[in-house]
Amino acid sequence: MYRKQTCGELRIANVGQQVTLAGWVQRVRKMGGLTFVDLRDRYGITQLVFDESDGNTALCDKANHLGREFVVQAIGTVRERASKNAKNPTGDIEIVVTELNVISSSEVPPFTIEDNTDGGDDLRMQYRYLDLRRSCVRKNLELRHKLAFEVRRYLDSQNFLEIETPMLIKSTPEGARDFVVPSRMNPGQFYALPQSPQQFKQLLMVAGMDRYFQIVKCFRDEDLRADRQPEFTQIDCEMSFIEQEDILEMFEGMSRHLFKALKGIDLPKLPRMTWADAMKYYGSDKPDTRFDMRFVELMDVMKGHGFGVFDSAAYIGGICAKGAATYTRKQLDQLTEFVKRPQIGAKGMVYARVEADGSVKSSVDKFYTQDVLQQLKAAMSAEPGDLILILSGDDAMKTRKQLCELRLEMGSQLGLRDKDKYSCLWVIDFPMYEWSDEEQRLMAMHHPFTSPKPEDIPLLDTDPASVRANAYDMVINGVEVGGGSIRIHDAKLQQKIFEILGFTPEQAQAKFGFLMNAFKFGAPPHGGLAYGLDRFVSLFAGLDSIRDCIAFPKNNQGRDVMLGAPGEIDQKQMDELQIKVDLKK
Amino acid sequence: MYRKQTCGELRIANVGQQVTLAGWVQRVRKMGGLTFVDLRDRYGITQLVFDESDGNTALCDKANHLGREFVVQAIGTVRERASKNAKNPTGDIEIVVTELNVISSSEVPPFTIEDNTDGGDDLRMQYRYLDLRRSCVRKNLELRHKLAFEVRRYLDSQNFLEIETPMLIKSTPEGARDFVVPSRMNPGQFYALPQSPQQFKQLLMVAGMDRYFQIVKCFRDEDLRADRQPEFTQIDCEMSFIEQEDILEMFEGMSRHLFKALKGIDLPKLPRMTWADAMKYYGSDKPDTRFDMRFVELMDVMKGHGFGVFDSAAYIGGICAKGAATYTRKQLDQLTEFVKRPQIGAKGMVYARVEADGSVKSSVDKFYTQDVLQQLKAAMSAEPGDLILILSGDDAMKTRKQLCELRLEMGSQLGLRDKDKYSCLWVIDFPMYEWSDEEQRLMAMHHPFTSPKPEDIPLLDTDPASVRANAYDMVINGVEVGGGSIRIHDAKLQQKIFEILGFTPEQAQAKFGFLMNAFKFGAPPHGGLAYGLDRFVSLFAGLDSIRDCIAFPKNNQGRDVMLGAPGEIDQKQMDELQIKVDLKK
Repeated sequence: MYRKQTCGELRIANVGQQVTLAGWVQRVRKMGGLTFVDLRDRYGITQLVFDESDGNTALCDKANHLGREFVVQAIGTVRERASKNAKNPTGDIEIVVTELNVISSSEVPPFTIEDNTDGGDDLRMQYRYLDLRRSCVRKNLELRHKLAFEVRRYLDSQNFLEIETPMLIKSTPEGARDFVVPSRMNPGQFYALPQSPQQFKQLLMVAGMDRYFQIVKCFRDEDLRADRQPEFTQIDCEMSFIEQEDILEMFEGMSRHLFKALKGIDLPKLPRMTWADAMKYYGSDKPDTRFDMRFVELMDVMKGHGFGVFDSAAYIGGICAKGAATYTRKQLDQLTEFVKRPQIGAKGMVYARVEADGSVKSSVDKFYTQDVLQQLKAAMSAEPGDLILILSGDDAMKTRKQLCELRLEMGSQLGLRDKDKYSCLWVIDFPMYEWSDEEQRLMAMHHPFTSPKPEDIPLLDTDPASVRANAYDMVINGVEVGGGSIRIHDAKLQQKIFEILGFTPEQAQAKFGFLMNAFKFGAPPHGGLAYGLDRFVSLFAGLDSIRDCIAFPKNNQGRDVMLGAPGEIDQKQMDELQIKVDLKK
Repeated sequence: MYRKQTCGELRIANVGQQVTLAGWVQRVRKMGGLTFVDLRDRYGITQLVFDESDGNTALCDKANHLGREFVVQAIGTVRERASKNAKNPTGDIEIVVTELNVISSSEVPPFTIEDNTDGGDDLRMQYRYLDLRRSCVRKNLELRHKLAFEVRRYLDSQNFLEIETPMLIKSTPEGARDFVVPSRMNPGQFYALPQSPQQFKQLLMVAGMDRYFQIVKCFRDEDLRADRQPEFTQIDCEMSFIEQEDILEMFEGMSRHLFKALKGIDLPKLPRMTWADAMKYYGSDKPDTRFDMRFVELMDVMKGHGFGVFDSAAYIGGICAKGAATYTRKQLDQLTEFVKRPQIGAKGMVYARVEADGSVKSSVDKFYTQDVLQQLKAAMSAEPGDLILILSGDDAMKTRKQLCELRLEMGSQLGLRDKDKYSCLWVIDFPMYEWSDEEQRLMAMHHPFTSPKPEDIPLLDTDPASVRANAYDMVINGVEVGGGSIRIHDAKLQQKIFEILGFTPEQAQAKFGFLMNAFKFGAPPHGGLAYGLDRFVSLFAGLDSIRDCIAFPKNNQGRDVMLGAPGEIDQKQMDELQIKVDLKK
């Protein structure tokens, strides 16, 4: 062992002790005859001191020639510091070094190894091994380790078995694109990498495994949006002989365990909100409930007073921003610009301020009497000093989504989205289907194995679009961290669902045959859910991007710039695989 | 919840209790007016009883119509059994059923769901979800879960961080073949699936992560030998600021923890054997030390007495099989046939029995005096009743490997390879290089980042083939369960090793450039090892094949017969990937 202690453990109680540390040189300062070296390892930073007046000039000289990020071993004695550093847990002491061994030298790193680094994103990704030395990045990985371990500890205590499912599986083109892997032993054939172990976990339930989980890599070959990675990690879970309530209880328990273990937070009982309510009050199936600012529908109040935009609207809805009546005209114009951006797509925004005297001043005063505006105030439960913002449109769902964006923006502007505050809930009763304009058919909102609510089964024949599913999402701070459903375990019902989705029996057999066959041999009632580990960790770490909790992430082009992956392969490899590159001109 | 109790938990103490169970029908027996149903779940089997004399004919009728593997829910009362079954933990009780609900029916399964099933290998793999219902298979997965969890518990307690490394990496054609993944976003380029996270874990050490581990899927596109899978799982570990001794201690500790936690065995201190001794005494770098039967070199004793085969041999070695003098001529002929099989390739075998009176009778008596045979007896430490078996050849290493096979065969025949007995050791001081006839150059025995023993570094220039590495394997019962090495952290030494391996600086840069670049910025001394999880579990479970501890294994053609993977993919997928299948005629 090159060290006997770490750079994070020495305290005032260790004064006088002979110690051996090893680590990286964070910085070197020469002050007169004294040289101070900050030595860093995973556990902290400890100050080394070299004193010329001790007579050992060779040693001091060696210290003075250390560069940033050199790896050294230092032997010396712990002594109390003259000027202590309260910000550093080891700040009360320093090491008077008697022996210094340079283990590895270092070129000057391309950016500073500090929380506030001077390195840009691209440079840090190219030298990710240096970026990971920064304590702010390392802490994310430590948190990830701890979170995954606590997940396992909880699920193990609940009799779950972690079972590995295969990575080289069969391509079933449905939903996102598969990554495929040519098979050399079976020329012309391909494996696919799993988008999720969905069908395997259901097979494991048929196999009687009862309570399964897996923390597992999944793959989706999608054009990468802001916070997606082609490979990502799921906490994948499934249980048998359960109903929806059992799943919600079990995984609420897991979240409670995690918040307690990682954050010391006692999570209250999770509220539940139907998907319909989430859309009605927040315009989103993943409402950020750290702040209220619920939508109020204003059709009754605002329609029919001669303001054409509202009079012709299919939906009018408002939010009340407490205390924001002080917003200037410029700020309000910026908000209008915000909702009119193509990504959001609103046509405009109406606002109304509640003055100190209780009167209401709106941007559409010429169409509305103070009497109607007072009705508006009452409907919005607005008080003096509040700002009411209203959107309208000819498609209720689209307008709600626009209002959702406005609500989130106001929440951010008013400082209501504190990263250290957590608001968790279950969103339940999702619809079974959503209409796809592209495919011109109903698509499974969750996936084709999701079971309908028993009371809605008759609607499958008459009005499938209105059927609700036994499906649920866990939402934290406006992020869907996990979701799942109770599955269908009845082959006939499954058949019917496939029909509604427009699969012929042959297509259903080709895509999901092995699962449907399995169901013929005694399928237990089962259901489960999956958490996105990357997002879950990001939330706990208060990160803006999942990238920062992944050791070696890919960029938006799906590239690992450090590795230079993907890359070209040898002709020999291509020949063995019996494939050819066939680039379009 | 469809159940309130499991099928494994009810005991005599529960008599009189109302219970609700759910599970699969193992079997139905009708005995007069009584119907007995064995109900099975993951936790055990509980007997249900239906009594016609209770007057509920409809209920009994329902029970009599249950088929094997139906999924049912049963509500009833626990009562003491008249005839108890001591083999079953629930065998003291049975459930007098008052309500029976059929949840799912089942077709007749294609094989019996019992430890001694009538299903052949192929059928069981095709219906793996039914095979997994057999308790002997399920137990392997339970053991696997437990082993993985205890590995994590141990390593977490030792401050290791589990860090996920990427699955979509860059192909570096060296060693085994990579599986590759065409990139749609980067046409003409490919990712590779990792054969191991070797370079990533070294980068993590450069990144200061200090103690890393990961239980991770790895991939090798090799022609599958008996006990290989194209995807397999490694327990991958690496540490910084350590020497070989630290690694051996740490992972000996892990094995001790696992044997205690999983088997209740207190593992003794692991003996260490040099690679040279392992080859000399066992003809293998993974000796099965459950039994002794060490090789004795017999050149001095047996050479030069006129027996041409021995006189011209470069190596003569024997083993002494205690008490096997009773072997018949037929048995000895079979052993001779065994060593002459092409897989082993010996030319013949010489044997010698030690008779009750101490005299020695050999198959080559005409060439040797009793005096010489007595010297043989003494050299072999043979006693009356023992059988001496001797092989010779013109290549010492090859002959030792043949003798190794003979030794293992004799161990098996004499019942010395008990699966419930464990003999663990470290094999150390592996050679750095082995000569490749195919490549006509020295190849890294472990991998090109392995560091030479410091005292052997001068030999790199003069006799590289004799240089020993800081490399080690953990061997249990003749199986290499893990192996690793101390890595080179010095760029100049690494450069030299690459030269000896015949890489030009350009080739080295192309293959390992990102790692070599990383080493320029302060690399700590580091090393590690990797265990094959599949083999490790197989050993603990006493399995002959790793397949039985994998939920969904592939067959020898790399196929998953249940999924039908690999398979053809759509032309659309191929077009998007801009590749073509190019089958050789």
